[in-house]
Parts: sequence; C-alpha cells; structure tokens
Amino acid sequence: MRNTRSRHLSGTMASLGEFGLIRRIRQMLPETTAAVECGIGDDTAVVKLTGTSSRRILITADMMIEDTHFSLSFISPFALGRKAAAINFSDIAAIGGAPRFMLVSVGLPLGFRTETIMTIYRGLRAEAKKFGCRIIGGDTVRAKCLILDVIVVGMLKAGQPPAYRSKARKGQHVYVTGSPGESGAGLELLRGTWRLRKRLGRTATRLIARHVSPTPRVREGEILSQHFHDLAMIDVSDGVYSDLNMLAAASRKGIQIELERLPCSATLRRFCNAVNKDALNYVLFGGEDYELLFTTRASPEKIARLFRRHRIKTPVSQIGSIEGRGVVFLDASGKVRRLRDKTFKHFS
Amino acid sequence: MRNTRSRHLSGTMASLGEFGLIRRIRQMLPETTAAVECGIGDDTAVVKLTGTSSRRILITADMMIEDTHFSLSFISPFALGRKAAAINFSDIAAIGGAPRFMLVSVGLPLGFRTETIMTIYRGLRAEAKKFGCRIIGGDTVRAKCLILDVIVVGMLKAGQPPAYRSKARKGQHVYVTGSPGESGAGLELLRGTWRLRKRLGRTATRLIARHVSPTPRVREGEILSQHFHDLAMIDVSDGVYSDLNMLAAASRKGIQIELERLPCSATLRRFCNAVNKDALNYVLFGGEDYELLFTTRASPEKIARLFRRHRIKTPVSQIGSIEGRGVVFLDASGKVRRLRDKTFKHFS
Repeated sequence: MRNTRSRHLSGTMASLGEFGLIRRIRQMLPETTAAVECGIGDDTAVVKLTGTSSRRILITADMMIEDTHFSLSFISPFALGRKAAAINFSDIAAIGGAPRFMLVSVGLPLGFRTETIMTIYRGLRAEAKKFGCRIIGGDTVRAKCLILDVIVVGMLKAGQPPAYRSKARKGQHVYVTGSPGESGAGLELLRGTWRLRKRLGRTATRLIARHVSPTPRVREGEILSQHFHDLAMIDVSDGVYSDLNMLAAASRKGIQIELERLPCSATLRRFCNAVNKDALNYVLFGGEDYELLFTTRASPEKIARLFRRHRIKTPVSQIGSIEGRGVVFLDASGKVRRLRDKTFKHFS
Repeated sequence: MRNTRSRHLSGTMASLGEFGLIRRIRQMLPETTAAVECGIGDDTAVVKLTGTSSRRILITADMMIEDTHFSLSFISPFALGRKAAAINFSDIAAIGGAPRFMLVSVGLPLGFRTETIMTIYRGLRAEAKKFGCRIIGGDTVRAKCLILDVIVVGMLKAGQPPAYRSKARKGQHVYVTGSPGESGAGLELLRGTWRLRKRLGRTATRLIARHVSPTPRVREGEILSQHFHDLAMIDVSDGVYSDLNMLAAASRKGIQIELERLPCSATLRRFCNAVNKDALNYVLFGGEDYELLFTTRASPEKIARLFRRHRIKTPVSQIGSIEGRGVVFLDASGKVRRLRDKTFKHFS
C-alpha cells in the first residue's frame, strides 16, 4: 500500500498511514520507565502508580466517528453503545485484564436527538455492567457528526503478568478464539441487498449480529493470562492476517500458519457458498472480529481443560506455531502460499 | 436560555443543552460506591482501586473539535497541543491533584499534514513535561476535521482529600487566582481586526497569549488542597459567573460576590478602554481562563504566606463569601446588582 501512493499526497496522513504515524509518535516520546511499563504500541497502556503497591493499571481509548466507523442506518443506538464499550473491553482482554472504569467523550451535532444519545448511553451501560465496569465521567461537546471516544481503565490481578503481544517465543503454539471472519461477512450483508439477506435467513441474522454486537473475550483473556505466564496476546480488530503480522513484528519472531487449521464456521461457509466467495478472505481480512489471537507453549488439550473447568464454551483453534521468519502460510501439502494483503487501511 | 428555544428543536441537544444532558446521564448511572468516590459531575472522576492501598486516582477527558473549539488559523499546532494538555491539567488541578499520565485520541482528515500533527504532539509533550506527566497511549482515526480528545490520569498525595466543588460551607471566603477575563479579551482580539491588534501593541500580544497559551494552576491547586482540607475548588473554564453558579449549585450554598473585589488586570483595563467596553463582562463571562475558583476558611494573609513559602507568584483575590442563597453580586454600596447571564452555551 505505502509504495503505491500518488506523489501529491506526500507529507500527509494518506501517505504516512495510521501505523506510520503511531511509529513516529512513539519515536518522539521517551522510553518506558518504572512507572510506564508499556506506552504506545500494545492494546493498552500499562502503568504502575507509585504508592499503590505494584498493581498494574491498564488504560485504553478507542474513538469512533459517524460515517467512518459506523452509520446509524446500519446499527441501532443501543447496539452502537454496546459495541463502543465492547471494542475497548477487547483491548483490555488482550492484555489479560478486567475492565473497571469507563469515561466517554461524546461529540454531538446541535440537532441530535436527546433520546438517541440516551439510548447510546444505555448500551454503554448495559455492556459495562456485564463485565463489572462503571461509567464514571467524560466530556460532552458540540460537533458536526456523532463522535464517541470511549476510555477504559482496567486492572490485572496481583502478580499477573500482562500478556504483551511482544512476548511470543519460538516453539509456542498459535491460537485464535471463536470464528473470525463472521463479522466481516455481517458487514457485507448490512451493506448489501435485502434480497440476499432474506435468502440467507438465519445465517444472515447471525452474521450481522456478530458484526453489530461483538462479544469481547474478557473472561477468556483473564483465565488464559492468569494460567499461562508465557502468554503473548492481541485482539483481532483489523483481521487475523493483519494482527498475526502485528504480533510477529512486536515479538520479532516468525509465525507459520497452517491454512487448513484456520477456523471457518458453518455459518460463514453457508454465506460464502451463497455469494460464491472464498471463506479465507473473510477469516484473514474481515476485521472487527474481537477474537483473541495468542501464543503459548500450553497444549490444545490443556487449554480445553482449563476452559471446561471455568465453564467457558468459546472454541479455541490451534492455527500454527512460532517459528521461522515473517508470517508464512502453508497449504494442506505444506507448501508456502503467497497471500495478497487485503486488510482495510484507515488512511487510504 | 433554556426557555426561549424554538419548538422545532424540542427533543434535541439544542433544547437540552450540555448540562441538561450531563444531568440526564448522571441520573441514569448508579450512585457512587466505595470504588467510585466521584463519578460524573466534578472536574475529574475520582476512583479508588482495590488492592492499591487507598490512594485516589483522578481521571479526566476533554474533547476539542476543529472550528468548534479552535481554528488552526488562530492557533499554531504547537500551541494547540500545549493548550489541549493544559485544559486537562486544569481539571486535575481543580481537585488538587498532579497529572501523571496522558492518552490522546486523534481524529485526522486524510489530507492532514504529518508535520502538523507531529507538531501538535510536540506541544502536548512540552506541556506534559512541565508538569511531570507522560504521554502513554491513545487512538488515531480518520475523521472529517481535526479532533483531539485528551485523557489525563492524575493522583492525590496520600491522605490528601479531593477539593470537590461540593465542599463549600457557610462562612468560607471565596477566592480566585490570576486575572480572569484576559483570555476572553484575547479571543476577541484574535477574531478582530489587525488594526486594533497593532494599535494595542504589547497589550494585545499579552491578552492573545493568555488565550492561546493558558497556564494551568497545577502547583497552586496542589499546595492549596494539601494545606486547607476544607477547600472546595473548580477551574474557571466557562467564565467566573458560570463557575460560581456551578460551585454554588454543587454545594447547595449561596455565594455573595463583591463586584469591586473582582480582579481586573491593568492589561485588561487598557484593552477595555480602547474598545470602550465594560471589563466586568470579560471577567465574569470571558471563559477559558483556567484560573482556580475556591472557597476556604483560610484568610487571605494565610494564603499569601503559603504561596510565598512555596515561591508561587500567582495573585489570589478574595472576591466574596459563602452565605445567603443563590449567587448574588453586590456593588460598592452593598446593593444587589442584577446581571444578565452572557455565558457562551455550547449547544445553542
């Protein structure tokens, strides 16, 4: 992407891109310290407060802008509130933490309906309540479109190490929770024709729900990171392909993925058959899955037992291992398959 | 204001207003708990984290939107960054805390110049450094205009009570720091003609600087609240008139202000003479002063001694006392003077 931009955009966000900007900001800021264990670059910032024993505090923020990140013609105000909370909880989950406090900064046009914003808050509150999180403040300002910036403060249990994405080590297995790709298919259905939705019936309803009401894997993240101290984790927000690359880059390790092992739900398969598309595209490049991608030496059986013990029903798929260099995809015969990056880029 | 809105706006933000919305959100959320000492309604949220002894943590967020809160034709990118940090530090100061960590959520148009956003970050970093605060994270998204949401986490010293605005008690003096009104005059100069600016020379430069580069009273707030445990405090962001009313309402107490005692700097007086306007309008309704308005039983002499000991040169003016009902303004002869509220309303 970055090499094909036209020259007249040089020196703008269009040529630098989101991750280019984050890299530059990171370079500009001082290194981590005793108080700031992890600054810019992981799912959440991790800080230690002096005089607060050694408990770590997690802070994350996610900004959503109308007609860029959502459209009120595709999502109800209540669902929007829930989703805005859920995607932040997913960031907290990816470090292994539990959300505790939430602040919400809202930008609103003058003619915005009061009931709509109240319903968005009800959605935020409902999702927060599910995870024992409390809304404690924020800001309300006038804007040209609806803007929601949700800030969540979370915590780790005493002695629990953060599951940084940079902790991947050679020999670990690579896992992913749930069914990535369904959310991307759901978004396509929302943007598509009524006819297709009607034809697909409950398949369509399920996929759309996965896009509109994602479930952050908070409990899963907590349990995993409390039990496996070698855990490296990231939440799948831009698609499995993109987040595998993020994890590999942060850890400076290679990843081998067996394409056959990537989970593909029956629902997603039905959708792909109906629209005659390759399910792999959705699983790898769909985005907004909010599943957890993690690496550990723990075996699939050990993880299954742990989840059973804690009554967690979320499926976990072992999809590869930490080895070699770069992110490599192998087909059923063990041959390397080259894939073109189709990840959605926010500044292009 | 709220009664004169036209009917076709009923049910919208235009009829509810910012504070109406905050009130409704507050009603919707549960009461404070052991963990959430102060939720929505003060300058910052105040929480206690379990397992972190009993240190209180302060969290505040302030969203600024291009062409609503600022215009890059009136403020340089560096100054904008500094100011975005400063107004959050002012909220932390108003509780008596010190800023520790900052997150920044940024919305940027596609064609936004990289150098401009980097310079804004340099401004944020410079202001943060001044107060021992660290930028640790945030979010970067695509938007139609520049959006900055700055989130600051602060702390109080062990055993230091938060200087809530609801703590005003009968018999206390009312004080204000510095020179409120100068910032409002500065904004008017920025929006006015070059000719006037040129004519006023250094007076104009000083007033504009007060608007563009406000100084949050962090040190002042900390020292005051560490020494006077009866302190009630608020920062002056919407103008002295508005924030006096906020403090009175939060404390359910009356305030009597002696108009003669309101501080009016020589600089502001020179400006008012030149434009033939009443300085009182700027002092009471100017806005964006980021001075501290506080109440305590401590005498002016005691405060002066305390500031001298800590080498703080910021002037403090005793402007009235906590008594009676409502916010009442008295002229030199002790007669009540009725004032029309000219505070800028964000949703109107």
